Amino acid sequence: MDKIIDRRDLDFVLYDLLQVEELTRYPRFAEHSRQTFASAIGTALAIAEQKFAPCNRKCDANEPHFDGERVHVIPEVKEAIDAFAQAGFIAAMYDEAQGGMQLPYCVTLACYAIFRGANVAVDAYATLTAGAADLIHEFGSPEQKARYLAPMLTGRYFGTMVLTEPQAGSSLADVETSATPRPDGTYAIKGNKIFISGGDHELSDNIVHMVLARIPGAPPGVKGISLFIVPKYRVDSEGRLGAKNDVALAGLIHKMGYRGTTSTMLNFGENDGCAGELVGEPHRGLTYMFQMMNAARVGVGLGAAMLGYTGYLHALDYARERLQGRSGKDPHAPPVPIIRHADVRRMLLAQKAYVEGALALCLYAGLLVDRQKYAATDEERREARLLLDLLTPIVKTWPSRYGVEANSLAIQVHGGYGYTREYAVEQFFRDNRLNEIHEGTSGIQALDLLGRKVIAENGAPLRLFGRALAETVLAARGCEDAELAQHAAHLSDAWERLVETTRVLGGAMAKNPELGLANASVYLDMFGHTVMAWIWLKQALVAWPKRSADGAEGDFYRGKLGAARYFFHWELPKTGPQHTLLRSLDTSCLEMQEGWF
Amino acid sequence: MDKIIDRRDLDFVLYDLLQVEELTRYPRFAEHSRQTFASAIGTALAIAEQKFAPCNRKCDANEPHFDGERVHVIPEVKEAIDAFAQAGFIAAMYDEAQGGMQLPYCVTLACYAIFRGANVAVDAYATLTAGAADLIHEFGSPEQKARYLAPMLTGRYFGTMVLTEPQAGSSLADVETSATPRPDGTYAIKGNKIFISGGDHELSDNIVHMVLARIPGAPPGVKGISLFIVPKYRVDSEGRLGAKNDVALAGLIHKMGYRGTTSTMLNFGENDGCAGELVGEPHRGLTYMFQMMNAARVGVGLGAAMLGYTGYLHALDYARERLQGRSGKDPHAPPVPIIRHADVRRMLLAQKAYVEGALALCLYAGLLVDRQKYAATDEERREARLLLDLLTPIVKTWPSRYGVEANSLAIQVHGGYGYTREYAVEQFFRDNRLNEIHEGTSGIQALDLLGRKVIAENGAPLRLFGRALAETVLAARGCEDAELAQHAAHLSDAWERLVETTRVLGGAMAKNPELGLANASVYLDMFGHTVMAWIWLKQALVAWPKRSADGAEGDFYRGKLGAARYFFHWELPKTGPQHTLLRSLDTSCLEMQEGWF
Repeated sequence: MDKIIDRRDLDFVLYDLLQVEELTRYPRFAEHSRQTFASAIGTALAIAEQKFAPCNRKCDANEPHFDGERVHVIPEVKEAIDAFAQAGFIAAMYDEAQGGMQLPYCVTLACYAIFRGANVAVDAYATLTAGAADLIHEFGSPEQKARYLAPMLTGRYFGTMVLTEPQAGSSLADVETSATPRPDGTYAIKGNKIFISGGDHELSDNIVHMVLARIPGAPPGVKGISLFIVPKYRVDSEGRLGAKNDVALAGLIHKMGYRGTTSTMLNFGENDGCAGELVGEPHRGLTYMFQMMNAARVGVGLGAAMLGYTGYLHALDYARERLQGRSGKDPHAPPVPIIRHADVRRMLLAQKAYVEGALALCLYAGLLVDRQKYAATDEERREARLLLDLLTPIVKTWPSRYGVEANSLAIQVHGGYGYTREYAVEQFFRDNRLNEIHEGTSGIQALDLLGRKVIAENGAPLRLFGRALAETVLAARGCEDAELAQHAAHLSDAWERLVETTRVLGGAMAKNPELGLANASVYLDMFGHTVMAWIWLKQALVAWPKRSADGAEGDFYRGKLGAARYFFHWELPKTGPQHTLLRSLDTSCLEMQEGWF
Repeated sequence: MDKIIDRRDLDFVLYDLLQVEELTRYPRFAEHSRQTFASAIGTALAIAEQKFAPCNRKCDANEPHFDGERVHVIPEVKEAIDAFAQAGFIAAMYDEAQGGMQLPYCVTLACYAIFRGANVAVDAYATLTAGAADLIHEFGSPEQKARYLAPMLTGRYFGTMVLTEPQAGSSLADVETSATPRPDGTYAIKGNKIFISGGDHELSDNIVHMVLARIPGAPPGVKGISLFIVPKYRVDSEGRLGAKNDVALAGLIHKMGYRGTTSTMLNFGENDGCAGELVGEPHRGLTYMFQMMNAARVGVGLGAAMLGYTGYLHALDYARERLQGRSGKDPHAPPVPIIRHADVRRMLLAQKAYVEGALALCLYAGLLVDRQKYAATDEERREARLLLDLLTPIVKTWPSRYGVEANSLAIQVHGGYGYTREYAVEQFFRDNRLNEIHEGTSGIQALDLLGRKVIAENGAPLRLFGRALAETVLAARGCEDAELAQHAAHLSDAWERLVETTRVLGGAMAKNPELGLANASVYLDMFGHTVMAWIWLKQALVAWPKRSADGAEGDFYRGKLGAARYFFHWELPKTGPQHTLLRSLDTSCLEMQEGWF
């Protein structure tokens, strides 16, 4: 299994925890079954093991380079993405009529999880292509779909997301790239973009850039931004590749990790010859992009969870093999596997709690996407949408933060070896550090959660999540196990405190937004830990009746209960001081003047 | 100043907080004054700015490599260390008669801090040489001192510390390298060592390896290990270099960071021709080594603090320059420096609190070393020793952990740019991650603190530290400032809880050592935060009377009070749940069985 994922755990999450088989009751997935899901996951695992994982280190050691004419990427990358595309994973969720697998999003995420755990940098090309394709699928004209979407779904064209500009960073309101209408109905695109992953390479016949730009006369700020298709090579109405568009590689960016993915600075229209096609209506670009962005954010969380997960499996393997030290003080006693040392078990248990919890959370978000789209009633769909919106900032950031923490612990378990490039874990740590930054930094997510999500629709999302949590608490009390009942009591308390803290902050924000929002990052972290405690109690509830099973099966469930216990004893209590801090409306950060640093 | 350190802060710590001028009352430092200290620090800064910092990135990008015959290191490294040695910094603490500067340890550390902040990888060669020299100085024979120490103090020979073996790791009891007596009085050394920093290069005329090995018939475990001088090139009684000793480079290790320092696997005596000289008495090697190790551990903490410190200054500079986003919602308003955003200030304030606190802690440890050696009375020297022993695990690990956290925040302040190798902060993050591993992992430090240090001499060290803390609390109450009084109350509470937690754990350990020690890492972290709160209250006390000064001077002190406030409001409360966990004698990690993972 190449230490990518514990298949037993993945099945547990999908079938026992999330009960994804129930999705087959929706007409869209009626042809599917646990067998077809398993088959897709099995294919993903096979490709990940054969094509993705083996070149992970090589991708890191052989960063893409530009020779003045072309960007060179090691050939294994193309082989891997070709296998991914040929197996149908770019079009995994598309209609069967379109050559897709018509898989639920949740199951698709399970497959993507495997690729990300195996080689996150290679997966990025595929993910970006899928994301760009989705934008065209959702908002493009039939003609744009014919020319661009079809070759993207088969992996012949790759896609990118082109948002960031050097001067604007997270502040998309300040996008300055211009799109001037031309007589032929296209737009002349002009501007500089930065941090464009997959922005240039020779891996595909074409690259379809999805570019945010401003049409002259557009309103200022985020409401004046439009979305354009800007292909690297022009495509005529018959789908034939034409001349190169005026998109110039201004430079490659050299990153700490994720090195297998080209990261570029691109200049559009340096020679006034860059043609773009408007997608959908003018000025609605950011709205469109944000629909994808939410999926992208779940995807970032998933990648972070999986980097943590594979790191954990590597550390676990090492801890079982590595002999060092002894249990007592007798120097004649033979050395023991380091997993016998309590502090090593602590580090493994923390990793297990972080990464299995994070994966379950991300797949739960995937399930909400499916429900939001395909559930039977309006009400169910609405509820799924509200929950998904609420949780997205947490799904993006919690795994990113605690995934890195898990990777750091994986290094620590390896000792000095973990710090070397001869072992895999140091790369996971470097790769994972990106995830708190891209697709909206954690700071941006925190403002989104507290400033928008929890106060949306008069607090309906918060109440909905509270209801889900209360059901879990009730179930845990119902099984009459002293430990689960205690977990339930702690979760219930934590939730009450969260609601009260939210109320206090909401009141403060109504009077002085900055005062309420100043400590939003703490709120995000606290909320995330509470959600994660809920995820762990849900897992414990499933595991509890099977805790006495024999052998490996019973071990698996006892492990789940052990990790849940760890989370409730070690992690959830950390939210206590966070509530105190937040409710005090602490002004330490606000009052610290620039000159005082 | 090249963003290495805030000289104003360094002076504050040395002269206002630690009052190092009082050291000049000790006869050993009678010739010194604030002026001579400042002169040494000024020289260190000049060399660090001119020779160390400029090649920091280049050292990282051009790792040492082995061509089959020689190890190549970029020439700037030799230039930097030559400047360091020529200015007398290897011999900084040695007698003036020996060509030393006879500086206090605390002031020497201040100088070393600057070099480490500028280029930690280059500094490592110098630090290791100083450490190896100290071993010979303390325990070597006059003859060994004549042949090895003199050329080391001038930087003509470099030194290394050779402890770790591939199969033993942290478990030095399992060292297997053998040292067999030879007729000429030397020993035949045979064995394989790993993670030997500076283990091979062409930077110096010779390399003096300080090697732990076992004489045949020695007792098992740590009480049977002896210390040997094993030079790369033999040295005759006249100090002339002779033939190459049988020390073979088995390979270079490629690390995540600290790349400018060669890290080696060395094979001693592959051809049975490796001669070593016993240092001091047989079987006392580990005792000798640990005397240096304590200094090395303070040094690790200092390096970690300084990597965090320089990262903070880089982030601060960036946050003041970078324009992005705006204060209100008006899209026409001009963008503001990101330091105006509360969440960016939070990240800067956390960094400031971590790194300035960590530096002050490390220099305080340096002061204890001076007191331990030179204070006027036995009692003062004893107290300094007890405090230093108690605090060493914290001085080593707290800056290592929170220094990395600071570096991560520095990346986050930079956003996407911070993740690229075009900006300095990503290297600091990678470099700093080593510090929780080498010279005894954090897990080992935690066992040392709880299993040995706090229970030493019937708890005398803990009582001593409690006394120092109580004095600070009393002083804070005495200045009649509501905020300082509140800090004092919180610190006092935290200390009472710490003492009670220690008592509970001590009781448990008496019955079942594993139960008490299982959560030692949490104890270490909690103790560290409490010590750091004390350090911040001490700083606040010095700053308080000057808080209303005009201009930059007042800003500096207001900044100190702001950082103290941050630490008391945001950080110290994190110890609350830690006490609860520890006192519950939680068995989550102990009970988690190997098969359950």
